[in-house]
Amino acid sequence: MTEQPSTGPVVDLNSDLGEGFGIWPLGDDDALLDIVSSANVACGFHAGDPSVLRRVTERAAERGVVIGAQVGYRDLPGFGRRFIDVDPAELVNDVIYQIAALDGFARIAGTRVRYVKPHGALYNAIVTHAEQAAAVVEAVRRYDPDLPVLGLPNSEWLRQAEAAGLRPVTEAFADRAYTAEGTLVSRRLPGAVVHDSAEVVRRSVRMATEGTVQAVDGSTISVHPRSLCVHGDTPGAVEIARQVRAGLLAAGVSVRAFA
Amino acid sequence: MTEQPSTGPVVDLNSDLGEGFGIWPLGDDDALLDIVSSANVACGFHAGDPSVLRRVTERAAERGVVIGAQVGYRDLPGFGRRFIDVDPAELVNDVIYQIAALDGFARIAGTRVRYVKPHGALYNAIVTHAEQAAAVVEAVRRYDPDLPVLGLPNSEWLRQAEAAGLRPVTEAFADRAYTAEGTLVSRRLPGAVVHDSAEVVRRSVRMATEGTVQAVDGSTISVHPRSLCVHGDTPGAVEIARQVRAGLLAAGVSVRAFA
Amino acid sequence: MTEQPSTGPVVDLNSDLGEGFGIWPLGDDDALLDIVSSANVACGFHAGDPSVLRRVTERAAERGVVIGAQVGYRDLPGFGRRFIDVDPAELVNDVIYQIAALDGFARIAGTRVRYVKPHGALYNAIVTHAEQAAAVVEAVRRYDPDLPVLGLPNSEWLRQAEAAGLRPVTEAFADRAYTAEGTLVSRRLPGAVVHDSAEVVRRSVRMATEGTVQAVDGSTISVHPRSLCVHGDTPGAVEIARQVRAGLLAAGVSVRAFA
Amino acid sequence: MTEQPSTGPVVDLNSDLGEGFGIWPLGDDDALLDIVSSANVACGFHAGDPSVLRRVTERAAERGVVIGAQVGYRDLPGFGRRFIDVDPAELVNDVIYQIAALDGFARIAGTRVRYVKPHGALYNAIVTHAEQAAAVVEAVRRYDPDLPVLGLPNSEWLRQAEAAGLRPVTEAFADRAYTAEGTLVSRRLPGAVVHDSAEVVRRSVRMATEGTVQAVDGSTISVHPRSLCVHGDTPGAVEIARQVRAGLLAAGVSVRAFA
Repeated sequence: MTEQPSTGPVVDLNSDLGEGFGIWPLGDDDALLDIVSSANVACGFHAGDPSVLRRVTERAAERGVVIGAQVGYRDLPGFGRRFIDVDPAELVNDVIYQIAALDGFARIAGTRVRYVKPHGALYNAIVTHAEQAAAVVEAVRRYDPDLPVLGLPNSEWLRQAEAAGLRPVTEAFADRAYTAEGTLVSRRLPGAVVHDSAEVVRRSVRMATEGTVQAVDGSTISVHPRSLCVHGDTPGAVEIARQVRAGLLAAGVSVRAFA
Repeated sequence: MTEQPSTGPVVDLNSDLGEGFGIWPLGDDDALLDIVSSANVACGFHAGDPSVLRRVTERAAERGVVIGAQVGYRDLPGFGRRFIDVDPAELVNDVIYQIAALDGFARIAGTRVRYVKPHGALYNAIVTHAEQAAAVVEAVRRYDPDLPVLGLPNSEWLRQAEAAGLRPVTEAFADRAYTAEGTLVSRRLPGAVVHDSAEVVRRSVRMATEGTVQAVDGSTISVHPRSLCVHGDTPGAVEIARQVRAGLLAAGVSVRAFA
Repeated sequence: MTEQPSTGPVVDLNSDLGEGFGIWPLGDDDALLDIVSSANVACGFHAGDPSVLRRVTERAAERGVVIGAQVGYRDLPGFGRRFIDVDPAELVNDVIYQIAALDGFARIAGTRVRYVKPHGALYNAIVTHAEQAAAVVEAVRRYDPDLPVLGLPNSEWLRQAEAAGLRPVTEAFADRAYTAEGTLVSRRLPGAVVHDSAEVVRRSVRMATEGTVQAVDGSTISVHPRSLCVHGDTPGAVEIARQVRAGLLAAGVSVRAFA
Repeated sequence: MTEQPSTGPVVDLNSDLGEGFGIWPLGDDDALLDIVSSANVACGFHAGDPSVLRRVTERAAERGVVIGAQVGYRDLPGFGRRFIDVDPAELVNDVIYQIAALDGFARIAGTRVRYVKPHGALYNAIVTHAEQAAAVVEAVRRYDPDLPVLGLPNSEWLRQAEAAGLRPVTEAFADRAYTAEGTLVSRRLPGAVVHDSAEVVRRSVRMATEGTVQAVDGSTISVHPRSLCVHGDTPGAVEIARQVRAGLLAAGVSVRAFA
């Protein structure tokens, strides 16, 4: 997939989809597919089951939304939100398994898995955990070295991915507060999440057009995200995501997948 | 993969591999890989985990053993041996997921999944269960219509597969007693399993060279298997499988994969 | 627990609770606990996890709602709604495990598991499946022969339970259509479910006061339920359940647990 | 259970049992039940299933072997050997669930769960992880404050257990090398495990009679274990355990459970 030439700023919108399991739905996949350009689809290890994968890959393909593998720890009871000290050699295989399973459904839907974004505790762990970061990089490299990988700027994950010849893609969070050092304010601290939708839209537009965001100490930091992560786990979140998209378009930003 | 011309009889030897899970091993994969021409590799739903799949696909590829997807019900506690009345639409997706996950490891090992053989209770169910048979056929057809499928002659499974344009491959069991109608004697009945290794070898050779086997009532029935299933879940079983291979070769039978 | 004397009709209201799993909620447990007298709490095999069990048992105990074990097949992906041909000897142990686990939380909450109600496909199976019915009966008898068991009148399950010395308790469904033979109309047929809330209330009151219900052919059949099952999986269902309770009380029916 | 008076030294032998799952056996439970006085029985979260629990509790009860709950992380794929950063509030409930489930089978076998010993990565974590140690202590205290708990001397786990009013019981490993500080030499270092059976027996006897063991630097350290942990996961391990028992008896040590 090559990007069309564009004179203005471009950003991708990514969100987590396919996170239901069996009888239990989660989020509003259909609504998000009208908003985002990239869908991080859960692969069955922390969320998602084969019928969920089938459905979301087909609908994403129909709408031209790019499919990425939302890989995570094998932990359905914990939704992949708990760090697991997996042997890196096993983590390589756990990640390959997930990408491959999702890719099967993507192929059936006439497309392919186009990128990889780790989920939850794995996402957080590999910001700094060198061995697990290396394991996920190795998994992607083995499965398909042409797959770009999505993550936090300055993370161990993206550094190692780049060193291994993968294409790193940085993302930002319009609804999360940033420290002056450019890291996310911990969710345990007050003000970690921006709840005002107009403010989230303003931050999104500024990130996409100027490549900056105001940190909690008032300083301006550089982010330059190629992708913005939006959420869809509540009706309110979906509505904010919709406004972010509209705000970006109104500001002359093209919403376009990176892969 | 095209078969080389051969003047003599040809048969495939298939066996179940990759059936360990986590800390728990099962069978002797390495020994079997020196005996069989086709490995039915469990895909993680009733047995097998990503690291098991990685290991067995790599070793199979190294030895030139063809890899097939041993798909089953999602039932680790029951090893896929219990019939589950799964909605056929969900079974389609469960099977696609399994084939795709295994195929990812096969690709990494430089090869591909080359056939599909259902396991345990699913294998038995789709001898007669039309809806579940149709679901597994649909899964294979969707994933890759060029994949041959392995099963019992006269089963609903192979009939529907053929009707859907898939290549059906029939197998026989040298260590199982047959009724005069050509079906397997139930394991609940005495004499269902042939334990004498010399007898198993004799039956194997006869099946491969003459295409017949003696039924429990003494009559001769026609089987003409393209593949013989051997077992490896006990040291004794591996030894019998080794003798079957040796006996076939000694009788001038080529042991060669069908896919 | 002995029942207080009462001059008027008495019925229990039971509903399924504790059916969330991890990140995934299901139903509105808190709302139902203000409506029902008996809570069928999922035990972790088809729904529910330890933290769900802890929460719902504590809240049930606080409100004086009696706790029953909602036992099912080991099938989280299928929510226990798919028949599994489990070996009866293993089913005995699966059911004991579930009752015991829930009972641990009930004890911590200052109470006990007071009855057993099978769930989903197991509930349906043991209406006629003698071996599985015997297995569930054996499990209850082994765990605590004083536990009453809840089920359909004329089911194999209640017959065998009674023969084994357990106390059978019959339930009825105010929102389900009945055949002239007293069985439920299959959900696959039109009209199987009564959606009109006023009609559900009328049927509930009639069942509780007269012990009868009108079958689909217009005939009047006898049901005499000691318990009525209400649902809570949708906001609409909770509202109907609330009206059923109010309607029963208005009609002079005491809503009281059977255990 | 009060201990009978005894003039000589007394020690308990404990081992992990019930660690099979479904089709997959592990270890030789029957052999170990003739050797140990206390059986740490897996409860289904990292190993064990209901039928395994049923069998091992019945056999333990028949032989008078005391049953303890071998509680662990919810991690069948990793056999509970991987640290999981579980929310402590959820860990409390995970542990209660496991103890209660096992206790159900113990009751059916005519006995009770008599102690708690954490397994694998949880065992190791709560040597130092204060929050998780507190969670396991809280679980035991809630379930039954009379249950003694087994662990490493000087661990956070036993310190907190004692502070909470539980009875801490210390164990030692006759086949593991100790540092001069009394901690176990990491398995990643050479010499961490003593493989010579005669040496394991000598160390066991010395631990039980003198309360000391020689550390890797040659110094003598004090251990005074009330229980010795022996292994049974290989035929060789079972044989060593048998010799340890025989050696203790020959040295005049009584092998007796602590609970």
